[in-house]
Amino acid sequence: MIPTITAFADSPDQGAGQARDMRVRWALEEVGQPYDVRLVSFAEMKQPEHLALHPFGQIPTYEAGDVGLFESGSIVLHIAQQHPGLLPEDKAARARAITWMFAALSTIEPPILDREAAEYLEGDMPWYAEHLAVVEERIRSRLEALASRLGDSEWLDGAFSAGDLVLVGVLRRLKGSELLAAHPNLLAYVARAEARPAFRRAFSAQLAVFTDAHASA
Amino acid sequence: MIPTITAFADSPDQGAGQARDMRVRWALEEVGQPYDVRLVSFAEMKQPEHLALHPFGQIPTYEAGDVGLFESGSIVLHIAQQHPGLLPEDKAARARAITWMFAALSTIEPPILDREAAEYLEGDMPWYAEHLAVVEERIRSRLEALASRLGDSEWLDGAFSAGDLVLVGVLRRLKGSELLAAHPNLLAYVARAEARPAFRRAFSAQLAVFTDAHASA
Repeated sequence: MIPTITAFADSPDQGAGQARDMRVRWALEEVGQPYDVRLVSFAEMKQPEHLALHPFGQIPTYEAGDVGLFESGSIVLHIAQQHPGLLPEDKAARARAITWMFAALSTIEPPILDREAAEYLEGDMPWYAEHLAVVEERIRSRLEALASRLGDSEWLDGAFSAGDLVLVGVLRRLKGSELLAAHPNLLAYVARAEARPAFRRAFSAQLAVFTDAHASA
Repeated sequence: MIPTITAFADSPDQGAGQARDMRVRWALEEVGQPYDVRLVSFAEMKQPEHLALHPFGQIPTYEAGDVGLFESGSIVLHIAQQHPGLLPEDKAARARAITWMFAALSTIEPPILDREAAEYLEGDMPWYAEHLAVVEERIRSRLEALASRLGDSEWLDGAFSAGDLVLVGVLRRLKGSELLAAHPNLLAYVARAEARPAFRRAFSAQLAVFTDAHASA
């Protein structure tokens, strides 16, 4: 059973790997599961057919047999539960890895999303810089706690897990920012994850959507 | 094995049920699992002993035997996986219920948290009202999609699940706001959840921390 995921037909980042299908592709590559991709336009995402699969009209989605899911975190967890490789066998360690998935999405990503929302919704406002400073302070506080916990460890908690995968997906939103660069151990952690063969295959696959489209245009 | 959770010794909401231990208490009540509570002060939350359990220095945490977790979403999922009652048996339906947990925390809650952060961090700024309007528009867009998906259904997807529990926990942050009141079906959905005996027991237990403290003060 080959699952089908959805991705942007025309991604805002043109293949820089920030769209959330990247996290799902990466998880599928880590466990060695082939997959099909259906590209959807912004207009198609708001149509009833796509909304039936994703009530918020976004990507990615995941379909395999009678399973139809949305939310990259949930899809990554589903993949990790179906295949070995992304969650420890030990029950307590498994629950901790899942905890890190939630921490990445629920504690660390929100102020980072906020920073992006501020840029595209309020970037032209006279008070943008003042607001940005407040948002960045919230991000800084999360990253300090995270950097302190990670220390010199290779991964969050033993072997690489779905928790690392989702967290790195979140931290990559800060690529090029001094917020991340302020923590050399977090920079090195992200670089270690990006060097994984599964990450590189997933990155190439999502980039090819745009380079191939250019080639044929 | 009686699990121990942590909660605020001095909650900002004084028992209005907005602190995130409420979600965990509610899940434990739904599955009929007794639990102990350890109250922690704001100072204690930043001490090494608590940070070892919760790297971001917050509540709730969950400890049972060799399992030590943080993040309310992860704790609710763990409880739901340990006991019957909060996740469907059917695998596809189970994955969909978990998807709603992630949607609540990762898609719906972030702009709601943003609105709270704006109020306490930027409420005195001259541009607060303008910024609030932008944040509320993001919330409005999520709630419209959610209200449209829920329609006249009792719960999100068949029987009450951990997805409903977490989502209602998130929507309750908007209690009293016109944002929620604009959608009578969402208001009714929250009210249905709050009428559940397990919710009421959990709510009373978290409120008692403060009323009992007052009584003995």
